[in-house]
Amino acid sequence: MMRKIEHLGIAVKDLEVAKQTYETLLGKSAYQSERVESEGVETVFFKTVESKIELLGATQDDSPIAKYLEKRGEGLHHIAFDVADIEAEIERLKSEGFQLISDQPKAGADNKRIVFLHPKSSHGVLVELCEEIKD
Amino acid sequence: MMRKIEHLGIAVKDLEVAKQTYETLLGKSAYQSERVESEGVETVFFKTVESKIELLGATQDDSPIAKYLEKRGEGLHHIAFDVADIEAEIERLKSEGFQLISDQPKAGADNKRIVFLHPKSSHGVLVELCEEIKD
Repeated sequence: MMRKIEHLGIAVKDLEVAKQTYETLLGKSAYQSERVESEGVETVFFKTVESKIELLGATQDDSPIAKYLEKRGEGLHHIAFDVADIEAEIERLKSEGFQLISDQPKAGADNKRIVFLHPKSSHGVLVELCEEIKD
Repeated sequence: MMRKIEHLGIAVKDLEVAKQTYETLLGKSAYQSERVESEGVETVFFKTVESKIELLGATQDDSPIAKYLEKRGEGLHHIAFDVADIEAEIERLKSEGFQLISDQPKAGADNKRIVFLHPKSSHGVLVELCEEIKD
């Protein structure tokens, strides 16, 4: 079951510039920066009450974020939902006819196992499911 | 001060079709449908824990949502933050150099006074400020 909105992702061209803009906009400092080399992305996270905002900058010219920026420019990139059991949610959504970008969860930023739905399944929205990794 | 993410707006072409998709995706029914004639928009709201998702369909060919759909297609449209004092937040953001689409709050959906920041101030993201109207 989809619980809360875990975070919102925003694709940006210059992560340092955007970080400063969002620190001013939100009136608080980012709490974490993290590179996900396998995805060619660098991330900056802000806490909001019960949710987060994630800025995403490309670290390679051919990463998914780089391609997104080239095609659509900066802006809202994805919405992530917190789920308790990602395998169960993948099964549920597949049985409902939603198309997933991958069948298996992979490691994402901020200590999560993640999977994405294809935007054509959700009216143009890239939906991410996140399950927190328990230590 | 920006508190929580009040809601996320998603622009869609066929509101009835998208409503059904999101009822399935989120595993719950929409709690409210509302037309905002002045904006040429019809909205459907879903509750998530501590936040909401709003689907937005055009009711006129020349409304902002219709123009958005024509230009960019369906997808994430805006992020709305809950604020306690919208006038104070407008003043703060203007003094920080953010550009607002209008200087005065107007009536929005779901019992709010609202104002938008220009996306060029926030790296391509249409940011909405919402103050709940107290009865």
